[in-house]
Amino acid sequence: MKEVDIDQIMKALKVVLSESKRYNLHEPLFQGNEISYVKECIDSTWVSSVGKFVDQFEEMLAEYTGVRKVVSVVNGTAALHISLILAGVTTDDEVLMPTLTFVATANAVNYCNAVPHFVDSCETTLGLDPIKLRSYLKDIVETRSGASFNKYSGRKIQAVLPMHTFGHPVDLDLLLEVCNEFNLVLVEDAAESLGSYYKGRHTGNHGVISALSFNGNKIITTGGGGAILTNDEVLGKKAKHLTTTARVAHKWSFVHDQVGYNYRLPNLNAALGCAQMEKLPELLSRKRLLAEKYFQVFKGISGVNFFREPEFAQSNYWLNVLLLEKGFESSRDLVLEATNRADIMTRPAWRLMHELDIYKNCPRMDDLSSSISIEQRLINIPSSSFLS
Amino acid sequence: MKEVDIDQIMKALKVVLSESKRYNLHEPLFQGNEISYVKECIDSTWVSSVGKFVDQFEEMLAEYTGVRKVVSVVNGTAALHISLILAGVTTDDEVLMPTLTFVATANAVNYCNAVPHFVDSCETTLGLDPIKLRSYLKDIVETRSGASFNKYSGRKIQAVLPMHTFGHPVDLDLLLEVCNEFNLVLVEDAAESLGSYYKGRHTGNHGVISALSFNGNKIITTGGGGAILTNDEVLGKKAKHLTTTARVAHKWSFVHDQVGYNYRLPNLNAALGCAQMEKLPELLSRKRLLAEKYFQVFKGISGVNFFREPEFAQSNYWLNVLLLEKGFESSRDLVLEATNRADIMTRPAWRLMHELDIYKNCPRMDDLSSSISIEQRLINIPSSSFLS
Repeated sequence: MKEVDIDQIMKALKVVLSESKRYNLHEPLFQGNEISYVKECIDSTWVSSVGKFVDQFEEMLAEYTGVRKVVSVVNGTAALHISLILAGVTTDDEVLMPTLTFVATANAVNYCNAVPHFVDSCETTLGLDPIKLRSYLKDIVETRSGASFNKYSGRKIQAVLPMHTFGHPVDLDLLLEVCNEFNLVLVEDAAESLGSYYKGRHTGNHGVISALSFNGNKIITTGGGGAILTNDEVLGKKAKHLTTTARVAHKWSFVHDQVGYNYRLPNLNAALGCAQMEKLPELLSRKRLLAEKYFQVFKGISGVNFFREPEFAQSNYWLNVLLLEKGFESSRDLVLEATNRADIMTRPAWRLMHELDIYKNCPRMDDLSSSISIEQRLINIPSSSFLS
Repeated sequence: MKEVDIDQIMKALKVVLSESKRYNLHEPLFQGNEISYVKECIDSTWVSSVGKFVDQFEEMLAEYTGVRKVVSVVNGTAALHISLILAGVTTDDEVLMPTLTFVATANAVNYCNAVPHFVDSCETTLGLDPIKLRSYLKDIVETRSGASFNKYSGRKIQAVLPMHTFGHPVDLDLLLEVCNEFNLVLVEDAAESLGSYYKGRHTGNHGVISALSFNGNKIITTGGGGAILTNDEVLGKKAKHLTTTARVAHKWSFVHDQVGYNYRLPNLNAALGCAQMEKLPELLSRKRLLAEKYFQVFKGISGVNFFREPEFAQSNYWLNVLLLEKGFESSRDLVLEATNRADIMTRPAWRLMHELDIYKNCPRMDDLSSSISIEQRLINIPSSSFLS
């Protein structure tokens, strides 16, 4: 086992971080109309499930992402849950997803009483590997009435749910080819990738339906919040209906025509979101500047690489990534220890989904070697926009 | 069919409402530290899933309700969902609940893959009738290994989920006797009853676990929000764990030991909640004053009664209720039409759960006559605290 020079890494981090006293992984920046909009919201008393900021926030997101219909919801997990329902995922279906993801991706499938099916990621994007997926599906899929069935489990494979890891888009064109070939619905988990583009088109604007997140650690925040994106007007209407208790419109009567959800984003949180959206271009510039600084300081250090956006992508660099070279795996925990001890917050990737007890019996590729290797070598470093 | 005098009702309403220009059903009142706390929250940048206002709001709720452990969540529906899971409700169990309730009560059971089982309410509380429930259970229950099974469906009956309708408590002592006799877990849907007491003890402090709501139309609001209440420390810890993605505490590693939920109340919303809690006693006084005014003006009008708290209760009078006398059913829609036309917002009770297409095939008492009758005669009238 080779080891990186921890001192060099600490010095490099301190070159970039020297001007700040806060070294959390990702903190929000409120320098715009946040307080003014929230005050306006409270003064109006319209703080709850309807209000002008909800409408405005949805319009701003639609305009920014280029997606026709946006439905704001209470968080990214709720956005994923409804997106999967509207993608036709139902009891006992399988949904293909990377094993290298945050647990919400798998949980949302579970909420549909469906089964996550874990596949490998590639090192160029940190996300789902479409080439490996295609060859895997050729082995395991049996086509019946135009649908793909897992011939080992007997279950229908309904959808593919890639996640744009730390803001870096997967290769969506290749993935769409696979989806077409196997008749699978593409649902994008774009929770981490607001402001990230694949070949000039925003992430979340490629799948049938997609999910965004505005949790406190995301590039913009509404406290807690998320959004469902779709270009399909019918799905968009269904998303609004399902997330607002499926109540049939009427001046006073309370009739509900589906088992719906209380997933509305409160107007108070949307007010914060509107102010944050006004600052998104500036936040993105700052993030790209910070990423460039990190790239420069880590360039000369052996055994470690700063992860840069794939060539087809413009990434938001949500959480910056150091990737140790192969052979240097044992250094990961040493770096984590040294940095966190110095109050520079760093963390490894999430525990891989197929290694969690709750999901270890789910179907998966035998060969998840890239994900396993990435997980052993990846370190997230402080990424707040104000650090630039 | 007899009919009420609509003009008399309109005049009575206008006596009470004359000083206000707004006649919605229920609007929040922000006259305390709402803006100051929310501003403090934004200034601190801790707007999201952890923060001092979340802790403080939970402590204030615990102190106010007298319940040992409070876990704030994203809304009342989420609170119900987790409460049911922690009450042991699981796939194919049945949960007894009034057919006269808001759809969230039934939906939360559905989210557990369990089955709502609808029972009748009584006119003295507008909530679940424990006497009728007891005699019904004697007929349908078969006891096996100490648990109650529905001998017609074969399913286990795990819990009873009463809802304190419009803030009026059900007869909890009688209901607890039934729960003990049939070994059922009592879960209180106290979404509407913050500030309501049964024999001097706060609603939500009688069941094993209970749910509150702070939606925009409730007695206090956090924009959207809810809380789980329990005196059982173990259940309290589990509630916190399940609502925060079931992540195992660690400085940096992301391991989850259960299929958890992202149900955290953002600190931003909790900040609003803290300010609202400071004003709760005042809001309650205003509500009781408004109820008393309504009682006085409707006293002399034939065919209609203003609904007053049961003798064992001190109610928050969340939504004020006019109950037409039997025989006057045809007047309900005339009153609804006349009042709403005059911009005085009124509404009937919710469509009964067993009459919704989505729940019409669920098990139920044959005799739901009281609920049906109440639904035909009930009208909610404007109830905002500032109307007093």
